Formats: sequence, structure tokens, C-alpha cells
Amino acid sequence: MAAKSANAFSAALRRGLYEAVFRRRDIREFLPDPVADDVLARVLVAAHHAASVGFTQPWDFVIVRDLERRRRIKEVFEQEREKNAAEFTGARRERYLSLKLEGILESPLNLLVTCTPGRSGPAILGKVSIREVEIYSACLAVENLWLAARAEGLGVGWVSILRNDALAEIFAIPAGVIPLAYLCVGYVREFPERPVLESKGWAERLPPRSLLHFDSWQGAAGADSLLRAIEDPGIWREIFPGESPK
Amino acid sequence: MAAKSANAFSAALRRGLYEAVFRRRDIREFLPDPVADDVLARVLVAAHHAASVGFTQPWDFVIVRDLERRRRIKEVFEQEREKNAAEFTGARRERYLSLKLEGILESPLNLLVTCTPGRSGPAILGKVSIREVEIYSACLAVENLWLAARAEGLGVGWVSILRNDALAEIFAIPAGVIPLAYLCVGYVREFPERPVLESKGWAERLPPRSLLHFDSWQGAAGADSLLRAIEDPGIWREIFPGESPK
Repeated sequence: MAAKSANAFSAALRRGLYEAVFRRRDIREFLPDPVADDVLARVLVAAHHAASVGFTQPWDFVIVRDLERRRRIKEVFEQEREKNAAEFTGARRERYLSLKLEGILESPLNLLVTCTPGRSGPAILGKVSIREVEIYSACLAVENLWLAARAEGLGVGWVSILRNDALAEIFAIPAGVIPLAYLCVGYVREFPERPVLESKGWAERLPPRSLLHFDSWQGAAGADSLLRAIEDPGIWREIFPGESPK
Repeated sequence: MAAKSANAFSAALRRGLYEAVFRRRDIREFLPDPVADDVLARVLVAAHHAASVGFTQPWDFVIVRDLERRRRIKEVFEQEREKNAAEFTGARRERYLSLKLEGILESPLNLLVTCTPGRSGPAILGKVSIREVEIYSACLAVENLWLAARAEGLGVGWVSILRNDALAEIFAIPAGVIPLAYLCVGYVREFPERPVLESKGWAERLPPRSLLHFDSWQGAAGADSLLRAIEDPGIWREIFPGESPK
């Protein structure tokens, strides 16, 4: 246990991380207040410190304030949303159409995170048969950004109802660079207690135990004690004394 | 500024998040000590609270302790490493071969994170023309897991020098489920101050300003104040009083 306590953060520091993890939300309602440069800089530096295959750091960040470009993005969103809505029927379709799914124009800024495979050259330490590894890395940067934003009181909403060809054209993205995540960023009146898609009845959070497998997909050897722990509120007591974390 | 201060974490809580972000490392040297169930449970719950498109939560976690399966994984790694090494020449190839790139057998457990597209049905809120969105979501879970592990004093190393067909076979992963991230997890003697690929001279951290674009790939309108902020150590003073964060 010595090794454990030597490198673990204090309960207070761990709380900072877990607060960000549990209170992060996908945000679609923004206040117009501008984001201060020091806050945005910290969030971007956090993104840049994500893990990356072969230390390739394949990400870039386009900071979008220009309203004309955002209007064009909004049009693409509307077209794609029509297509997405057509995949649902009846009450489900009604519910889909009732949801606000973006804050492209209301938020003070948008951020496009891109991925450039092969930026450091064709040979990459860690990229062999699994060819998507740089895209995975760029996604890790998005989660860092999202958590740092939450800690800074900034909401982030990922708009995936878009088209990459349109993103590339609107922001003059060079060939070979992949538009990965289009994010709306800004302050919010409040962060919802629960994910909006959960509170609006669109989907439920899956029980953690349903996602665990042991040594193979159907395996359950040695599962019992971890399954007990994952459902035990007591595992959070030291970090969130006297309250439930979620 | 009222909206800002209302939802931002205290400097102390933000520090917990940024400590995890800046001190997280890709780890290849592990202690054999077992990971306690409560610690592993917190890390997995953190992963499960990542963002996901349409709240699909497309991830699963295979907890791998079985040594026989890990030996087979190690063999696949050795084959893939040969291929990867062959892409480099001369001193670069020597340096590649000198690097320890995994801790598959030494770490007390391995974790396979998978992605199941379409788990909640064929129609997904947020999945239209950009078809990889669930894979992106599963990557976000990996970064949550990695940061929580760091806060708990646990090292994580992502082994991407593998083949998905071998992973699927060894862990009996069903068709349609994508093996996404194979992670070695365990306690460590110490977390290196800098990424190993940086300290060993494999690659350098890119200057953050080189990754920023304004309104379009070549755009620089309104860039100055953010570029100044991102290189100003003063933006970290409130969070890391009297020291540099990185």
C-alpha cells in the first residue's frame, strides 16, 4: 500500500477531478458573456496535454468567433438535423424535434478540433495495424478540454450533426486534416444536475455492472468483489464526505 | 463576470483537475501490487461518466487478469512491434528498439475498452453524416479513466501496437464490437516528470501557439491577446500559487 499512497492525490485534489467528471454536461444553452483569454488559454493548454500516440499531438484548434461562418455552420446543422429526425418515428420523432441540440450562434465562441494524421511523418511509433490511433488521441484532447472548461465554469456542447466536407470548406481546412469535433463554448446560467437527454427521457444511464466483463466478453471469474464495490456509495465517502457525488 | 464565478470551481478544486491533466503519463513500468476494488471501481465509474453522442454510452470494459491471455497479447505486440520498428531506419530505429513500450505482463491488470456502435438501435441522436461519433465517445471515456487513474496514483499505458482481429479472438469479442483501447494498469514507483518520449528525445512538445487558428485555418484575426495569454505563466498563478504547473 506504500506505493499507492505515495503517488495518489489527496482526497481534496481527487475531488477536483471527480467534480469535473461528474458535473460536466453537454450544453446547448449559453449566456452571451465573452470568455476571458486566460480562461480559454488554460482550457486549451489542458487539451494540448492529452495523451497522444507516439507523442504526435495530432490536434489543432480553430477558434471561431466570426458570425458569418457560424451562420453557415448553423445551416448545415439544420440540414443534417432534418436527416437525423427522419430516422425516428411517432412520439420519438416529436421528442427529437423538441430538443435543443446546439448553441452555435448564441455561444460567444465555437471551437473546431481537428486531427492531422501523419503530421510528424509517415512512420509513427505506436501506429501499425490499428490505423485510427491519431484520431483516438485527438478525442482524448477533447475530453481534457471539456473537463477543464467545466472546472472553469464554461459549458461545452459537441455538435456532431454536421458534415465534414462542409466544415472543411467553411474553415478552409487543408486536405489530410480531419475535422473531428465542433464545439460550442460559453458560460451558462447553470449546469443541469443530470444530462439533458436523461432528464428529458431520451435515454437512461446504463448500470455500470452491465458494462463490465472479466477476462473475456462472457467471463465473470473474480467479478464479485468489483461488482460489489462499483455499486457501493461508500467508495466515494473519503472524496465526497457526507454527500453523494452524482 | 457573475455567471462566471457562479459556476467555476474554486482554485483548489480546479487544481485537482489540472494536476491530473499535467501529471498524467503513458506508463510502461509497473509495480506488481494489486489494485484495490474500490480504487478500480472509482476509475471505471469516472470512465462511464464521459460524454457520449445521444447518451449512447457505447463503451464496455474487459478487466483482464488472466495471465495466459496476456501472454498471447504480448506475442501479438511483439509481432506488431517488429513491423513498426521496420518503418524506421538507422539511429531512429535503434532508439525505437531501446524503448519499453508496454507492461502487459508486469502490470497487475490490463483493461480492454471497446465500442459498440448502434447498441441502442440503428437510429442515434447526433449520428448522421459523421459516422464515427460513437468511437469518438468511447475515446472520451478512456481519457476520463486515465485522469482518474492518475489521481488515484495508478499508472495507465495504452498499447496500440496490437491487432484488432487478435484482440477480438483472444477476448471473444462479438462481431460488431470494436476493440478500442488496450490499457495496462497498475501502481508505479514514480510518475516521470515529463513524457518518456519527450525525455528520451523521441519527440518534443509542440508550442501551443502553433496549434491555434482563428476563424479559419490560415486566419489570425483577434489572435494576439489569446496567444499572449497562452504563453503567460501568470494564467496559472491562482491555481498553482508559487510554482509552475508543468
